[in-house]
Amino acid sequence: MKTMKSQMQKSFANFFFEYETPRQVLVKNKRVAVVCRIIQMGVLAYIIGWVFMYEKGYQTVDTAIGSVFTKMKGVSFTNISGKERIWDAADYVFPEQGDSSFVVMTNYIVTVGQKQGKCPELLDKKIKNNCTSDKDCDEGKYKRTGNGHMTGKCVQNTSTCEIYSWCPVENDTDIPKPAILLTAENYTLFIKNSITFRQFDVVRSNLVESVDQNYINTCLFHPKTDPLCPIFRLGDIVERSGFNFTEIAYAGGAIGVLIDWDCNLDLSIKHCKPKYEFYGLYGTGKNDEKEKPSLGYNFRYAKYYMENGVEMRTLMKVYGVRIDIIVHGRAGKFDIIPTLTAIGSGVGIFGVATVVCDLLLLYLVPKRDFYKNMKFKHTEIPEETPTLPQSQTEKDLQKE
Amino acid sequence: MKTMKSQMQKSFANFFFEYETPRQVLVKNKRVAVVCRIIQMGVLAYIIGWVFMYEKGYQTVDTAIGSVFTKMKGVSFTNISGKERIWDAADYVFPEQGDSSFVVMTNYIVTVGQKQGKCPELLDKKIKNNCTSDKDCDEGKYKRTGNGHMTGKCVQNTSTCEIYSWCPVENDTDIPKPAILLTAENYTLFIKNSITFRQFDVVRSNLVESVDQNYINTCLFHPKTDPLCPIFRLGDIVERSGFNFTEIAYAGGAIGVLIDWDCNLDLSIKHCKPKYEFYGLYGTGKNDEKEKPSLGYNFRYAKYYMENGVEMRTLMKVYGVRIDIIVHGRAGKFDIIPTLTAIGSGVGIFGVATVVCDLLLLYLVPKRDFYKNMKFKHTEIPEETPTLPQSQTEKDLQKE
Amino acid sequence: MKTMKSQMQKSFANFFFEYETPRQVLVKNKRVAVVCRIIQMGVLAYIIGWVFMYEKGYQTVDTAIGSVFTKMKGVSFTNISGKERIWDAADYVFPEQGDSSFVVMTNYIVTVGQKQGKCPELLDKKIKNNCTSDKDCDEGKYKRTGNGHMTGKCVQNTSTCEIYSWCPVENDTDIPKPAILLTAENYTLFIKNSITFRQFDVVRSNLVESVDQNYINTCLFHPKTDPLCPIFRLGDIVERSGFNFTEIAYAGGAIGVLIDWDCNLDLSIKHCKPKYEFYGLYGTGKNDEKEKPSLGYNFRYAKYYMENGVEMRTLMKVYGVRIDIIVHGRAGKFDIIPTLTAIGSGVGIFGVATVVCDLLLLYLVPKRDFYKNMKFKHTEIPEETPTLPQSQTEKDLQKE
Repeated sequence: MKTMKSQMQKSFANFFFEYETPRQVLVKNKRVAVVCRIIQMGVLAYIIGWVFMYEKGYQTVDTAIGSVFTKMKGVSFTNISGKERIWDAADYVFPEQGDSSFVVMTNYIVTVGQKQGKCPELLDKKIKNNCTSDKDCDEGKYKRTGNGHMTGKCVQNTSTCEIYSWCPVENDTDIPKPAILLTAENYTLFIKNSITFRQFDVVRSNLVESVDQNYINTCLFHPKTDPLCPIFRLGDIVERSGFNFTEIAYAGGAIGVLIDWDCNLDLSIKHCKPKYEFYGLYGTGKNDEKEKPSLGYNFRYAKYYMENGVEMRTLMKVYGVRIDIIVHGRAGKFDIIPTLTAIGSGVGIFGVATVVCDLLLLYLVPKRDFYKNMKFKHTEIPEETPTLPQSQTEKDLQKE
Repeated sequence: MKTMKSQMQKSFANFFFEYETPRQVLVKNKRVAVVCRIIQMGVLAYIIGWVFMYEKGYQTVDTAIGSVFTKMKGVSFTNISGKERIWDAADYVFPEQGDSSFVVMTNYIVTVGQKQGKCPELLDKKIKNNCTSDKDCDEGKYKRTGNGHMTGKCVQNTSTCEIYSWCPVENDTDIPKPAILLTAENYTLFIKNSITFRQFDVVRSNLVESVDQNYINTCLFHPKTDPLCPIFRLGDIVERSGFNFTEIAYAGGAIGVLIDWDCNLDLSIKHCKPKYEFYGLYGTGKNDEKEKPSLGYNFRYAKYYMENGVEMRTLMKVYGVRIDIIVHGRAGKFDIIPTLTAIGSGVGIFGVATVVCDLLLLYLVPKRDFYKNMKFKHTEIPEETPTLPQSQTEKDLQKE
Repeated sequence: MKTMKSQMQKSFANFFFEYETPRQVLVKNKRVAVVCRIIQMGVLAYIIGWVFMYEKGYQTVDTAIGSVFTKMKGVSFTNISGKERIWDAADYVFPEQGDSSFVVMTNYIVTVGQKQGKCPELLDKKIKNNCTSDKDCDEGKYKRTGNGHMTGKCVQNTSTCEIYSWCPVENDTDIPKPAILLTAENYTLFIKNSITFRQFDVVRSNLVESVDQNYINTCLFHPKTDPLCPIFRLGDIVERSGFNFTEIAYAGGAIGVLIDWDCNLDLSIKHCKPKYEFYGLYGTGKNDEKEKPSLGYNFRYAKYYMENGVEMRTLMKVYGVRIDIIVHGRAGKFDIIPTLTAIGSGVGIFGVATVVCDLLLLYLVPKRDFYKNMKFKHTEIPEETPTLPQSQTEKDLQKE
């Protein structure tokens, strides 16, 4: 019992007062040594320069949670066959409450005074929906491209089936050209964006320190001169995203406005500023060379009203610029775990360098057998031990 | 001074023309060697097979920023007690502008001609809101489940408090069954989705190369035969998400449509294609076995109008299918940092293999003392040095 | 040929039945050994305690895809100069369909009966838009801060330019104070939230096991007593996000409601519960001490109607509480890859410990030369080999 205890104490003492370090051969071979040092210095340079400096491998990263509020300003004046009309934000923005995704109307087809009833379908040569007799119009059926419920009658003077529908049926074959609200180019968009980095408990707004109320009242975003001004001219947004305003106003289109935050929280929070970028969506922008199907952007909406007790509606087919504001935030801050992981991983790659050098040394160098003998010791048979006086000594010491 | 300089030069030369490599024992013990090799090959297989091949550990990963535009098509025809009516997209989609989250109305309770005034509260047996005298109706109070502001009067013939409210009060105790717009099953949904991988500067649309205008005009999504067609039948979406159309049309429900992009940008961009998935939201879908509270989906909205100078409204309680289109994108591309990190970490795990083998060798093998002597050299007292002629030589050489 | 084959067989046998383990020196130097062991134990404690226990480095992590549905309840009663009015959810929530981002109206400026026509611009002293003669009013021009299209006439009695606009022009200089719908404080918000962890195929709703229909009917969220109740009082939300209800109701403001899921899927799914947090957005909340520009939140919308064949509208400038519900989900589950990466990286850091100890031993300890000789063996010239009898033996054995 006593011996066991004393032995444990001794083991413990050995463990604590002794430490093992690998024995190494210092290989004086210039070629291999130089190669080896170059590889090691490359690894070191990579770890320090690339992983630590450039990619900031010592930082932990959090992505932002963002919230966006938008407000359009500007009015358009139209004069369609003598009928003057003014359009303000309440008229041309959908939806009205300042969402991060909204549509600015630039063109429209209006169908006034629709009411429920029977009327002939619109003739559409593309989909060949003409009829010659009532047989072509199955009662109660609905065609995927149709506007209503067929009554089973073929109307002679239009050569189309009669349908039960909102009448008269909308005729959207001719889109007004040029776009009716071409002056939309001068509307301004004001963006408020707030981001939160949960992990670091940081909240930040795009109205940064240098953007005060006086600046907002007069500024207009420009990537070089006013990169932080949160007020954007619609025409500029469209142009910077690769569209032509006349074309997008005519047929509609979708644009992504990216608010990009790339913050280094090891520096002062003042350096954490947004960058604004613009690009065309749905394959119509500058990033694609080929023409893609489904260009344009439009939707329909209806304003309902009662006339003499009958429900009526004004149907609008709205073409416009859809703007999707996308927030992309990323913040890094020093943290011990990624730092140690990067170092640990770097030490591992250092090991790779040694392995490569050893391969050179043991297989390619002329005197490789000599080096092999220096590096390796064989243990084949315990009978060999007598020939190793030094190890014998160690054995004796250990047994004591 | 001169000696110091020459010594530094020498140190530098030593550092550059010498390199250290660990001395090793080649242990000729079959059992331990085989175990060790198996562990090492396991680690190698894991690093190459799993980390590199399967998990693509050599790639850096970016998540997508997405933008979605939707368009519903289709009409419904209803005939309620002789009153025929047609419903088109402008009537049944909320909101109308093609958002990624929208509701398709399938059922509704309409309260026509509400105006501000006094009327009795609706009797609701569940929440026991009946009154017997005016004392039960506190003037000016509002109940959480009530529809208006109590005037302090108890109306005898309904046994409920009189309230100031939009009158008449909506009666939503009986939901139309079957759902009024059951034909909504045949509506089609067209989805345009654009994603951006910021880090790789890649923009991609769900209208991929094989989806051209002709195909879109005729196709209908099917997971096997038409997995890339961006046109979906509402009934199919509902069914694939685990709902029954008749039930969801009656009470409403929420469905998630997931557009999943998993792209390997080391291959051609053409292989980067979306996958569409459908699932029920808010615990009513197939993923849950237990019944959960708060099934159904409904909201109220009002159409306002003026009648003889009085503001009136038509209140709709809309039951419908809410569709949330969710974009989930992930792209990987070869990058040197994750590659080296994976290798470095793998070399580290290799070290673990050696540690395990050493434990076997030094503690479990019968001839462990012999191997211990081979592996370790003791340095207890400098007095020992004379017994180590070879080291003495090194010392001399170094001092020179 | 035969010799080559037998040699390959031998190499293979050598590879499989021999394994190399580094030779090490056991350094009996108490100071260095203790320092070394402390460093190693620190590394071990860090890896086990911090990386594995605290940061759960053995888990793979997925972020959630979420979907949110909201419903406001409550009515307000107003009495403006004898005109009583009741406001219910269909009147004060924008948009109406239960989006994750919506506005609750608390104050408004109404401009009744606007129609297209000519009227003088509103005098605004801040932007100095007064005119003295027709010269100040360029015909056809539009000012960024103006409400319409100038006709070129200066109206004398108002000293402002005449514009073509929706007339009369809205006068929003005086915001009603106190806010008209101050009772909005008592509205309740019901939130349904569903999240999906794609990687783990887990779907979860905020109506967790303990939240049943009975509980929902009566509960009200409180961070301590009812942290899982999905029903929130608007006044509580405002207060917890650092605003004062009277102020936010008057000028409007934006609030983020964060639903935070932090799930450990190695435990039962029942422990995966949401946490609700509230904070002010756009720099008006408690996180900022300085006053920021662009406080408040408002937007305009219009209700259109026909009167005697003329299109008219009621314009509302709505001030309100905008609520953005943000879902942030993160789930971890045991996975072999991060576990092995963490271990491998940890072994690498162990290597750093040895390097530090060696530096101590070889450069700081008085007997450093002795230890250097123990650790390193020099290989300068093959001619030295005769003096190394043991290596010679190995060479012979290998050549055999």
